[in-house]
Amino acid sequence: MLIVMEHEASQEQIDNVIATIKQLGYTPAPIPGSQRTAIGILGNAGPLDPSIFLALDGVKEAIRVSKPYKLVSREVKPENTIVAVGTVGIGGPDPVIIAGPCAVESLDQCLQIAHAVKATGAHLFRAGAFKPRTSPYSFQGLGQQGLDILARVRAETGLGIVTEAVDHEVVPLVEEVADIIQIGARNMQNFSLLRRVGKCTKPVLLKRGMSATIEEFLMAAEYIAAEGNHRIILCERGVRTFADHSRNTLDLSAVPAVKTLSHLPIIVDPSHAAGKRDQVIPLACAAIAVGADGIMVEVHHDPKHALSDGPQSLFPHQFEQLMQRVRAIAAAQRAFAGS
Amino acid sequence: MLIVMEHEASQEQIDNVIATIKQLGYTPAPIPGSQRTAIGILGNAGPLDPSIFLALDGVKEAIRVSKPYKLVSREVKPENTIVAVGTVGIGGPDPVIIAGPCAVESLDQCLQIAHAVKATGAHLFRAGAFKPRTSPYSFQGLGQQGLDILARVRAETGLGIVTEAVDHEVVPLVEEVADIIQIGARNMQNFSLLRRVGKCTKPVLLKRGMSATIEEFLMAAEYIAAEGNHRIILCERGVRTFADHSRNTLDLSAVPAVKTLSHLPIIVDPSHAAGKRDQVIPLACAAIAVGADGIMVEVHHDPKHALSDGPQSLFPHQFEQLMQRVRAIAAAQRAFAGS
Amino acid sequence: MLIVMEHEASQEQIDNVIATIKQLGYTPAPIPGSQRTAIGILGNAGPLDPSIFLALDGVKEAIRVSKPYKLVSREVKPENTIVAVGTVGIGGPDPVIIAGPCAVESLDQCLQIAHAVKATGAHLFRAGAFKPRTSPYSFQGLGQQGLDILARVRAETGLGIVTEAVDHEVVPLVEEVADIIQIGARNMQNFSLLRRVGKCTKPVLLKRGMSATIEEFLMAAEYIAAEGNHRIILCERGVRTFADHSRNTLDLSAVPAVKTLSHLPIIVDPSHAAGKRDQVIPLACAAIAVGADGIMVEVHHDPKHALSDGPQSLFPHQFEQLMQRVRAIAAAQRAFAGS
Amino acid sequence: MLIVMEHEASQEQIDNVIATIKQLGYTPAPIPGSQRTAIGILGNAGPLDPSIFLALDGVKEAIRVSKPYKLVSREVKPENTIVAVGTVGIGGPDPVIIAGPCAVESLDQCLQIAHAVKATGAHLFRAGAFKPRTSPYSFQGLGQQGLDILARVRAETGLGIVTEAVDHEVVPLVEEVADIIQIGARNMQNFSLLRRVGKCTKPVLLKRGMSATIEEFLMAAEYIAAEGNHRIILCERGVRTFADHSRNTLDLSAVPAVKTLSHLPIIVDPSHAAGKRDQVIPLACAAIAVGADGIMVEVHHDPKHALSDGPQSLFPHQFEQLMQRVRAIAAAQRAFAGS
Repeated sequence: MLIVMEHEASQEQIDNVIATIKQLGYTPAPIPGSQRTAIGILGNAGPLDPSIFLALDGVKEAIRVSKPYKLVSREVKPENTIVAVGTVGIGGPDPVIIAGPCAVESLDQCLQIAHAVKATGAHLFRAGAFKPRTSPYSFQGLGQQGLDILARVRAETGLGIVTEAVDHEVVPLVEEVADIIQIGARNMQNFSLLRRVGKCTKPVLLKRGMSATIEEFLMAAEYIAAEGNHRIILCERGVRTFADHSRNTLDLSAVPAVKTLSHLPIIVDPSHAAGKRDQVIPLACAAIAVGADGIMVEVHHDPKHALSDGPQSLFPHQFEQLMQRVRAIAAAQRAFAGS
Repeated sequence: MLIVMEHEASQEQIDNVIATIKQLGYTPAPIPGSQRTAIGILGNAGPLDPSIFLALDGVKEAIRVSKPYKLVSREVKPENTIVAVGTVGIGGPDPVIIAGPCAVESLDQCLQIAHAVKATGAHLFRAGAFKPRTSPYSFQGLGQQGLDILARVRAETGLGIVTEAVDHEVVPLVEEVADIIQIGARNMQNFSLLRRVGKCTKPVLLKRGMSATIEEFLMAAEYIAAEGNHRIILCERGVRTFADHSRNTLDLSAVPAVKTLSHLPIIVDPSHAAGKRDQVIPLACAAIAVGADGIMVEVHHDPKHALSDGPQSLFPHQFEQLMQRVRAIAAAQRAFAGS
Repeated sequence: MLIVMEHEASQEQIDNVIATIKQLGYTPAPIPGSQRTAIGILGNAGPLDPSIFLALDGVKEAIRVSKPYKLVSREVKPENTIVAVGTVGIGGPDPVIIAGPCAVESLDQCLQIAHAVKATGAHLFRAGAFKPRTSPYSFQGLGQQGLDILARVRAETGLGIVTEAVDHEVVPLVEEVADIIQIGARNMQNFSLLRRVGKCTKPVLLKRGMSATIEEFLMAAEYIAAEGNHRIILCERGVRTFADHSRNTLDLSAVPAVKTLSHLPIIVDPSHAAGKRDQVIPLACAAIAVGADGIMVEVHHDPKHALSDGPQSLFPHQFEQLMQRVRAIAAAQRAFAGS
Repeated sequence: MLIVMEHEASQEQIDNVIATIKQLGYTPAPIPGSQRTAIGILGNAGPLDPSIFLALDGVKEAIRVSKPYKLVSREVKPENTIVAVGTVGIGGPDPVIIAGPCAVESLDQCLQIAHAVKATGAHLFRAGAFKPRTSPYSFQGLGQQGLDILARVRAETGLGIVTEAVDHEVVPLVEEVADIIQIGARNMQNFSLLRRVGKCTKPVLLKRGMSATIEEFLMAAEYIAAEGNHRIILCERGVRTFADHSRNTLDLSAVPAVKTLSHLPIIVDPSHAAGKRDQVIPLACAAIAVGADGIMVEVHHDPKHALSDGPQSLFPHQFEQLMQRVRAIAAAQRAFAGS
């Protein structure tokens, strides 16, 4: 159930609703809104009686929420969430472009790529210091040294940093440096890790698991929101199917499906879906056209010598092409905003 | 193997190559090209010796083809195939829009929808007179009566007709009326039917099977081409996966994948993939942005009373929105053509 | 709706029910039963009023059928269907073993394999005279010559013949020779072909499509039954998934699922599912253990030189091992029959 | 690379090989073997020169390992691994039966079920104290209190305990009580957790991820083995596909595929795959017939009131039927052991 307060509800009235929820043995979850305060009620097994809450001062509505996720559902918060990172707003009118190499390899590598993508118009820089790898014998990332490099990249370029936290231990280290903490597809249902980043003060970029339904995806986001962190960015990155012409099958219908069900922004990662350089630009264009709030793309100045995922990384000049095309499509779309 | 003739090769020289191929026990397959004639050699189990052919007059090259499909492969014909239907060219610079109801229900219904979509800018009209249905007890289409209605629609609106042939028996009936003969997803590997429409003089729109790989898709097209019909339009319409937020998972990466491997045009059917009206416009936009040569969309003036697939049919005013958005994206894309 | 007649209902009473159904504009479908006659009513869009039929003489019950398939559903016919082929009963207490090469290659090849599998205890011989092949350039079977060979094999060994009909044209040829007409996975939703074999007097072995749900599988069987051929044997042969350690993923849960929903027998083809010889014996054992009514296995005396599917064909000595193990498991299962 | 020592190699010779590996900058991984010592070399990017090692005293062979996993591969250790838990050996001639409720609900519930399954012949007891749940608002398990109950169950019944560790924090708590630590499907690629249980002294039961290939599954096991814990039991529990008649599609071909590639034991969980009670017994029988080293089954004395996964839990009397059938099939299989 969701308690929606009157516009002019006082803090005292809000506190009274929260106290009432607690007395009933449930957990109150206040939800930030630009217009009014709403308070989710968590932890109830069955339906609640709305009249208990409607009788309280300052309460406008008590809404039964039909979805298993509450805090992230559009039923509960009809207007889009915009996640602000510095001057960048993810979920706003303009698509946000996140670019960079798969992994931090060296300061030189990162600076070279960061300067290039910034010059071309990227808004945020991505690179992994901790890499989840299928093999225990593969390069697992530079770790803390990689984070230090990322801090230098931000200092020199001004680009906000998106980087992955692979487990509990590294969350505080990553949180220190990252502007957005990434949770990878393999960890989408690592519920302990979701709860942990739910306590962070930085936004979380949550990638869809390789065989996750949209409901499971939103439930994973709900784990984060339920701990108090509402700054969540979803990311479609392809699902696993029988198809073998791309590494994963990019499921762009996830974008309108998520936007119908949730107020959270959703971006698309065409690089990991494709696994091949020559599909990245077309899929990036399609992602913007389908209505994604941004894209995250791998770019490397020397893909042949990249320590991971070289074949899917764009050359800087290809990233320029991508930016031109993406901008043109975004401009074409903008004319129809709100239609 | 593919024999590429010199520019100025005479018909006599071409005939001599064809005769030589036949003498060796193989099947010659001349391939139309704007620049020069090429002749595919079909039916050889192992590799052939190119020197046999290079010794003949007028032969420029003898190319080993590495793909299991030959006639439809880009190796064999590097330039795009444009399938002309009246004044419409599928595979050319501008995306082609095919619109109409799932099934022919009545002359009135078809005319009403056809006039509406024509006014909005659709290039071709689609509607099924023969419907492949999962249940033997479902509406199976109006049959010959439906074809008669389609002939009337063309006469009154000037729109070319796309309609499905579900089996051998109806191919001659459909060929009589259709401007493009559609082969449905369930028949993608109905090899007898593929061979049969390979003998037709009308172009064939071949839908991808629900669990077909790109190689199988192109091999199905090869069945048609091997019988002499090179006017083939491929159509991505979603594949079957675990995902349940759309009826099928639209696999837009199939478009760049096909374009790399084949010279054939490929369009996208967002309606059958989505199965839900509200995903059709975003997916149609994405299809154009990813580089498809057109889209095929279901439109109905009264979806609630449609005899089949009502929930995925757009209302005419939604189709107008779709056309505006699609045109804007196509225009944005055109600036980068050839890049 | 299903009309169940009294035990002692006269033919006149039955005819009267049939006439009434026709008068109402629906199609009557009499269903053979060992105990009593039942008559399915096909073609009604919505629910019917049972009282119309209960008022007729000799009618015991008028049952609303909740599934989209009727004739093949267990609701309509609770007891198992046993399809008799000569002295072999498929769907009875003992699993039926169908064995032979993928394709008919020569009389010598077929006789050699047929004698070997018969000696080991196979009940029926399988081999394709018409082969549906992904490539138009692959060996497509010996055709009529292959059927002649199969007729010889039956004459010399006494084994019943299972062989595939790939299209309308060959159905009469195949029906002439085959004891069971096979419909392949790619044709599971070739509805015209299903209707055509529904008119045959020989039983039909229907393979599950590579991405067919159980409901679609049973609906395909319903197409056959609706034309009057109730002697249908279903066959699970693996579905297409992301998994790459076998050619297809054998879905053995289809066996109990089908047995709950339908009265038809279901067998399993472990050879096409596995695509690899070394998984065939374990999967054949599992098929018997899960409750399948039989298995269909590829055996070749010289797999290295087989014209198709050599890698998945068992050597005759491996087929002997398979038979021993399968018999032991069937014996172990028999003790619990009816439990 | 794998260094295989002579039968009679001395500890000094073994230590010398280990020291040499370290000097070269690689990681030595001694592998326990009943016959002789082998030492894996981890951390090399490219191939190594075997002559370096063949020159050392006591070295019999230096084998290039072609798989990305080493320690768990059958190339490296041809004989089956038997994981001993008390008097139970998993991977030996007799299948091991693990049974119990999905979740620990109370001491009474656990004791009642444990006594029942023990009386019927189960070897180990399963129940979750920590439950990974899709929703943050679902019952997450009794936690430490649940572990205390499990300790009591073992004390009273003598059954070894299998229970899940969902994250780092709970590993030490679970390790204290469990005889086998379970890692769930959603955590199959939680590499930090895999490394953590790789340092435990208790065996690990690793469930296959819902969309994991066999190679990824074995690589996950390799993560555990690389930390020194070689007592790993794999568990097939169904993969996610389009099929909707069971919760997941049980992929029994994984059993022979794993047994070809790895020396580790593999069991099957039919309960989670099916998600429905009536498929559990047939799938359990099939699992034993396909060659699994055991099964893990959910049993509840009162499934209607189970706090989780009630619909897939067997009643105790159904578990008895399962045991009878499984024993009969295992006996039938035993006759062919080693064949």
